[in-house]
Amino acid sequence: MLGPGKAELMEHIRATGSISAAGRAMGMSYKRAWLLVEELNAAFTGPLISSARGGAGGGGTGLTPLGEEVLSLFRSIEAEAQAAATAGIDRLEALLRPVAPAASEPPDDMSHGK
Amino acid sequence: MLGPGKAELMEHIRATGSISAAGRAMGMSYKRAWLLVEELNAAFTGPLISSARGGAGGGGTGLTPLGEEVLSLFRSIEAEAQAAATAGIDRLEALLRPVAPAASEPPDDMSHGK
Repeated sequence: MLGPGKAELMEHIRATGSISAAGRAMGMSYKRAWLLVEELNAAFTGPLISSARGGAGGGGTGLTPLGEEVLSLFRSIEAEAQAAATAGIDRLEALLRPVAPAASEPPDDMSHGK
Repeated sequence: MLGPGKAELMEHIRATGSISAAGRAMGMSYKRAWLLVEELNAAFTGPLISSARGGAGGGGTGLTPLGEEVLSLFRSIEAEAQAAATAGIDRLEALLRPVAPAASEPPDDMSHGK
């Protein structure tokens, strides 16, 4: 219902006041951005994104109070999970073989062994 | 370096005592399973999987003490992150529109709208 992509789209909608600009910022087609907005608005108890079509610049597009609540909840879930995992991740990373100083390897060379 | 797939493979290796059987249990080719094992063994300060090739049934394959430590750390990171997120996820789910009683829809029908 809500994942990193939709959360980011909501943040772009809030920042730009426009569904199409938000989609563009994420390299997404207008149609795709609208589809995601429709999914979000249908999935929750009320719409998360309000859109005022027409008018100069399509003003009036943004997050509803419910949209703000859902987005903030999502971001806090992420932060809490990340915080809880930090100590364990540090311990796991301490068991990793140190990476060699890396003599400027080309990053995209798929022909490398390993 | 380590994700859900490799962790599951390690658990199957522990359960079956065999890299090929572990791969098979996950629908993975022998070659793919070996590649993942080699990656795991190279990534950490020591091998995570010991393999005794040859001999009846290829016995002696299993997790090293370091492998057990890494696997247990990975599973505890997951559990801690999940536990930390639970309250927030519950609050988020409470904002979802209740799903209609679902008149026994076929689960894999991709032609459905939405």
